[in-house]
Amino acid sequence: MSLEKTIKYKLKVEWGDCDPYGIVFYPNFYKWMDNAQWNYFKKINQSISKLEKLYNIKGLPLLHTEARFLSACKREDILIVETSLVKITNSTLKLQHIIKRKNTIVCVGAEIRIWAEKNNGKIISKAIPNEVKKIFSKYLIKEKKY
Amino acid sequence: MSLEKTIKYKLKVEWGDCDPYGIVFYPNFYKWMDNAQWNYFKKINQSISKLEKLYNIKGLPLLHTEARFLSACKREDILIVETSLVKITNSTLKLQHIIKRKNTIVCVGAEIRIWAEKNNGKIISKAIPNEVKKIFSKYLIKEKKY
Amino acid sequence: MSLEKTIKYKLKVEWGDCDPYGIVFYPNFYKWMDNAQWNYFKKINQSISKLEKLYNIKGLPLLHTEARFLSACKREDILIVETSLVKITNSTLKLQHIIKRKNTIVCVGAEIRIWAEKNNGKIISKAIPNEVKKIFSKYLIKEKKY
Amino acid sequence: MSLEKTIKYKLKVEWGDCDPYGIVFYPNFYKWMDNAQWNYFKKINQSISKLEKLYNIKGLPLLHTEARFLSACKREDILIVETSLVKITNSTLKLQHIIKRKNTIVCVGAEIRIWAEKNNGKIISKAIPNEVKKIFSKYLIKEKKY
Repeated sequence: MSLEKTIKYKLKVEWGDCDPYGIVFYPNFYKWMDNAQWNYFKKINQSISKLEKLYNIKGLPLLHTEARFLSACKREDILIVETSLVKITNSTLKLQHIIKRKNTIVCVGAEIRIWAEKNNGKIISKAIPNEVKKIFSKYLIKEKKY
Repeated sequence: MSLEKTIKYKLKVEWGDCDPYGIVFYPNFYKWMDNAQWNYFKKINQSISKLEKLYNIKGLPLLHTEARFLSACKREDILIVETSLVKITNSTLKLQHIIKRKNTIVCVGAEIRIWAEKNNGKIISKAIPNEVKKIFSKYLIKEKKY
Repeated sequence: MSLEKTIKYKLKVEWGDCDPYGIVFYPNFYKWMDNAQWNYFKKINQSISKLEKLYNIKGLPLLHTEARFLSACKREDILIVETSLVKITNSTLKLQHIIKRKNTIVCVGAEIRIWAEKNNGKIISKAIPNEVKKIFSKYLIKEKKY
Repeated sequence: MSLEKTIKYKLKVEWGDCDPYGIVFYPNFYKWMDNAQWNYFKKINQSISKLEKLYNIKGLPLLHTEARFLSACKREDILIVETSLVKITNSTLKLQHIIKRKNTIVCVGAEIRIWAEKNNGKIISKAIPNEVKKIFSKYLIKEKKY
């Protein structure tokens, strides 16, 4: 059985997600990408809660996020967020989120998270343990450009 | 110096608070009442964090909230939430929030919170300690009807 | 075939819906009830957009909402909002929302909306047309008490 | 009198803005940057509503946003969003938002918006009119790197 490297998260745009122009208020795209990120780690069997217990980390703190908006979305649009791991460095992971309405890409986002330990209340980035890197590497795919 | 029994919390309605009709998406009124509630307890010098430390409670769990909507609000409206304590029972507190735009009342809300301890992971309501009741009683005013 | 009078709306509690206590920040329950309300009218084939076109109304302005909170909800909880029409007056409709996690009722909410026309920029309540009343009456059920 | 090129928008982090870690749920930073953007155009006397009336545009559609997160923020933090115009191209404007808690930069964001007309329901980018470019150029400052 081949490994599923891109994980899908489905949602419906609701009335309260839209602004006075009748289109999605853009911070909601980030909320959906965050939902998709939690779902991603869970679906590849590396849920954040499991990683926290195993490696004494406190979540995967966010370093950078971005999004390119390609098509406005409206109430009742059904969107699919397709999430993939596209980069692993010594202490960071980069996820790409491609959000589609049917076959149209409406938004392309990315987030970089760091592997970090809490030390005296401060967040200190750490090298990702080798065994973790090994697991994540199996899911790594090439970042798509738009 | 007389005691200030009604505490004001000011806010500006923003674009992202409004729905496709161009008016406030109503759950935001509840968010603002919640902001006003935290502000209320702090301003009467009984911040939730202080009460948690002194009495081993975990916040003041919410039992009931309601709101009556009298006038639609739009982007750039300046609103004042006027919060008062209007009822104290053996184990509950009731706050009333009157939200005004200049002299117009746009929304009247209320929330009932319980005094509760955590016991084996369950929330159990408890009698409000007498000393706490005594302090809160000084701020008690009559609920306004609209 | 019997008429489906209670309409279900399903959702998953996400990380970003929760507050520092790790439980749902309560205004989100109202957002979900609003989502469920749009879904309700659509599913009984009386979508708000259709009613707007047929009767020259501007939505169904909200008069009052309330909610009783019975059990805290956490990330990954699957919730079902069960929405029913429980009261029709001359110019208002009342919906009840019962929110369940499996067989546990976690929240019971209600909303009263008015039938209104826009007249010179002002919202004026109107008698619900008889044909509309007749349709809605078929869906009317008794409000549940908790 | 010298021209004020960087516009400040002040806010307080509230309980409901924070996630189960007790820190700001990151999409809220984008909401605050959006609030600051509306405020920016208004304060330089080029409010979006005015531009819409004068030039038959429909807002300034968003093309790209990003943010770098430097320090976690908590309830009751007072934040200042400092917004500046940092780039003007033929049909786009780029704003940079530097968010500070006292003297600490907690987040650096940017947004690129396009000058566009609505044509048969489609958004078509257009050259920014020269008179508009001229006004905006007076506010242009160099993008800061972090």
